[in-house]
Amino acid sequence: MTEPDSENRNNRWIRLLDISMPSPKLGDNTADADRLVKYIKKTTFGNDVTVPFSLVKRLPSFLREYKYRCRAALYCVKGSWRIIDVYPPVGEMHLYAVAIDLGSSTVVVRIIDIISGANLDEVSFINPQHEIGSDILTRIHFASDNNGVARLQEMLIKEINGEITAFQGRLNIKRSEIVGLAAAGNTAMTHFFLGLNPFWICREPYIPVINTPDIISPSDIGIEINPEAPVVVMPGAGSYLGGDVIAGVLASGMNKRSGACLLVDVGTNAEVVLGNNEWLIACAGAAGPALEGGVAAMGMMAGPGAIDKVVIDRSTRDINFNTIGGIPAAGICGSGLIDLAAQLFLSGMIDLRGRFDEKVCSGRLVEIDGVKNLIVARAPETKNGKDLYLSQTDINALIRSKAAMYTILNTITGMANININEIDRFFIAGTFGAYIDPISAISLGMIPDLPPDKYVSVGNTSIEGVSMALLSSESLKEIYKIRDMITYIELNVNQEFMNNFSAAKFIPHTDTSLFPSVKK
Amino acid sequence: MTEPDSENRNNRWIRLLDISMPSPKLGDNTADADRLVKYIKKTTFGNDVTVPFSLVKRLPSFLREYKYRCRAALYCVKGSWRIIDVYPPVGEMHLYAVAIDLGSSTVVVRIIDIISGANLDEVSFINPQHEIGSDILTRIHFASDNNGVARLQEMLIKEINGEITAFQGRLNIKRSEIVGLAAAGNTAMTHFFLGLNPFWICREPYIPVINTPDIISPSDIGIEINPEAPVVVMPGAGSYLGGDVIAGVLASGMNKRSGACLLVDVGTNAEVVLGNNEWLIACAGAAGPALEGGVAAMGMMAGPGAIDKVVIDRSTRDINFNTIGGIPAAGICGSGLIDLAAQLFLSGMIDLRGRFDEKVCSGRLVEIDGVKNLIVARAPETKNGKDLYLSQTDINALIRSKAAMYTILNTITGMANININEIDRFFIAGTFGAYIDPISAISLGMIPDLPPDKYVSVGNTSIEGVSMALLSSESLKEIYKIRDMITYIELNVNQEFMNNFSAAKFIPHTDTSLFPSVKK
Repeated sequence: MTEPDSENRNNRWIRLLDISMPSPKLGDNTADADRLVKYIKKTTFGNDVTVPFSLVKRLPSFLREYKYRCRAALYCVKGSWRIIDVYPPVGEMHLYAVAIDLGSSTVVVRIIDIISGANLDEVSFINPQHEIGSDILTRIHFASDNNGVARLQEMLIKEINGEITAFQGRLNIKRSEIVGLAAAGNTAMTHFFLGLNPFWICREPYIPVINTPDIISPSDIGIEINPEAPVVVMPGAGSYLGGDVIAGVLASGMNKRSGACLLVDVGTNAEVVLGNNEWLIACAGAAGPALEGGVAAMGMMAGPGAIDKVVIDRSTRDINFNTIGGIPAAGICGSGLIDLAAQLFLSGMIDLRGRFDEKVCSGRLVEIDGVKNLIVARAPETKNGKDLYLSQTDINALIRSKAAMYTILNTITGMANININEIDRFFIAGTFGAYIDPISAISLGMIPDLPPDKYVSVGNTSIEGVSMALLSSESLKEIYKIRDMITYIELNVNQEFMNNFSAAKFIPHTDTSLFPSVKK
Repeated sequence: MTEPDSENRNNRWIRLLDISMPSPKLGDNTADADRLVKYIKKTTFGNDVTVPFSLVKRLPSFLREYKYRCRAALYCVKGSWRIIDVYPPVGEMHLYAVAIDLGSSTVVVRIIDIISGANLDEVSFINPQHEIGSDILTRIHFASDNNGVARLQEMLIKEINGEITAFQGRLNIKRSEIVGLAAAGNTAMTHFFLGLNPFWICREPYIPVINTPDIISPSDIGIEINPEAPVVVMPGAGSYLGGDVIAGVLASGMNKRSGACLLVDVGTNAEVVLGNNEWLIACAGAAGPALEGGVAAMGMMAGPGAIDKVVIDRSTRDINFNTIGGIPAAGICGSGLIDLAAQLFLSGMIDLRGRFDEKVCSGRLVEIDGVKNLIVARAPETKNGKDLYLSQTDINALIRSKAAMYTILNTITGMANININEIDRFFIAGTFGAYIDPISAISLGMIPDLPPDKYVSVGNTSIEGVSMALLSSESLKEIYKIRDMITYIELNVNQEFMNNFSAAKFIPHTDTSLFPSVKK
């Protein structure tokens, strides 16, 4: 998926350069800063090199101490190179950059060696803004009140700085050696990161403060890395299409393929991009929560003790499952829920409307508060020693989610006049994508009936895209190209959409010809 | 001399632009900052426009208040335009820039209307660094001691800020409307202005910290104008050739002429540039003090009460003079001294070695402490009611100065293989140039025997050049072109120079054929 960039070092837009200058003498009395620029220009760095003013003051004693030999970190912006810092010409040396995925639920921070291209360390943490509100709208409203933006920004930046400091300690890295940072998020998260008031994002006609930030300085937002390092925030394409999706397209590589591809990222919303190297359209819809395991009573995030795989014996109806970490079951994650529902359907325990078949399920069904519940795991196999139930309500919610997902996919491909079953590659991003069994999801009619090898799990495409953009000028350029290419489609939830949605609420679909592999 | 730029408004690199954008709506939901950039790009500003991050935060409420109409100040750097600020679209509006001549003795600060090109106000003040030392070397030594640079910078910037605030009051200008600043000075003064330690400037091999500063921010040096305004410091070409000389060349226009021209700026040193549109060489020498009126006992700066013109009746030897302001004489300025000495020579009161002729001077000569003194002005005509004297010592000092000046001019033209009497234009800069009578200076043999109309007084070329560079991108480019073209020549004070110097100590010269107009 993400092509390893470590071999492609000539494409770096942040670089380390060894410089050896003659010491000044009578007849060669170029000033110190001009001398540094002159000898950098003599390399392949071309004709436009600037020195930050903060560095100029330090140069004379530094250059004399190291006899006019040094290493310099530089970055390129719009064809000009700018010096970030200079370092002593002694010992082995590396430079680092930080990649951030600004998820509204989870933030991921990664540190990269930008010489080798290696990912050195990565941490993820619950977005501290949860303290203000778990949904983004609550945070947007909070932001607009007196200095709420500053508070939201501070919470985020403080924790990011803490993780960067921790990287430094673990990897024995100096702050001055961290010479770049890039971040991607949805438009609201990008605003919080930049300290911009998102007030107009959620009010018609939904206008962000900025979609395409220029390179900024760490001090502009309080980030603690080399003060002259470039900070890049991935551009968005509107209030509903953030830099995380743009970075995701880059990471998937769909923008380089000629066949029509789909990229689906299931987070709080399901974000869907359709297209290829010539065109890209995107949309988003509320298909997420049930698929993340958030809706079912026994639902949980993918983590230790979560049921992630389910197989039901079609003769005995024994439910066999796997938990993450192989420990007693604590709940079920999104992919487990999909597996479970698919297996329940294939074993006849639920019908095509998702209703429990009382006869087939006998012995496992109990009624709680007038709602039917299926015992998925019994006490000895569970973490808290109590049975784990899947209720009819849970299944109904999952079916609405899967129907929404399929309807969104069907609508966007229909808009582009593409047969949904002729998609060339189907990229599934996120934790959801990492665990999902495409065959189960197809069995439920959630995703189209493509050959399983057309499905590619691409992980956290946001942070992968950000990392690629940090390591390659071509990838960074591609980000802006994708941003310019992509069109956001407002899903018009009209009567036709609702009809399609209703048709998709059957398992796998009212039109079973759409799912020939399930019919078998 | 300085071509008025007010008609050439299309050449501005700092501009004011009226922008009228459609208000955002569904289907036109470009972000606020991106919208501003987009509509600026639709003008002639081309394809690269950036918004400073500090402005981004303020944009949403500003644009909505003024219904997406505004004025924007922008500047161009390396082909890219950068927004400085936005202003309400109401009423007439101007933008301003500050030009500074960083003289080591006197600092001149001027405010320019960069729409019309008009000079609105100008003040000059004694460089406050005089408190540390009147000569630049003392200040350089002071700078290298604990935080001396910061102190020297602070003294200078504080006074400049005071004058800028005073301009704002007098002209009713807002700080946000001052959107540019440029300064020129010798290399040491430029270092003080930038807060850079000039330690290595005065130590072999004489290396400045920087010769070609990039555009910096006002906050980098504590200047109080619009915080996003570009601050340009004119580049120098080495420790001994500062941006003031480069700016002077621009202001004189000698870099556009095909005939060989001389530019002489008499300050603490005499700085001399020789060349044309194809080549430029420069040198400096200690010829200044006597010519600025600083050496003679009765010497003073050109100002009220200073004798600036002298005519001696060749039969009666009556000394008739004019004082600046027509008030009783308080002393004599540089041009008055040259007039006086020339008239003394032409009337036979001093001989070709500058010695008083006792017979011819009879009645005006007195001996004080064994030195002959000539009474120039008698008590009733003087400010303090005492006679004003010119001593033999004063004349000797003047003759050394004039001989040094002529020798420098002779040496530099000789190096370029140019006949000193075939100079196409002789530009005399500074206060000295404003008052000097070329015929008197020729009579003394201080400057070559050119037809008087070849001499052009060009005033303070440093501040004129800075002003031109603020108003025109072509002039700003020309500054860097001049910097690249000009070569500094170290005047080698060898035996030949000393022989030439000795020959030039006669009035007008031992070789009178060099001064045919004086022979008559």
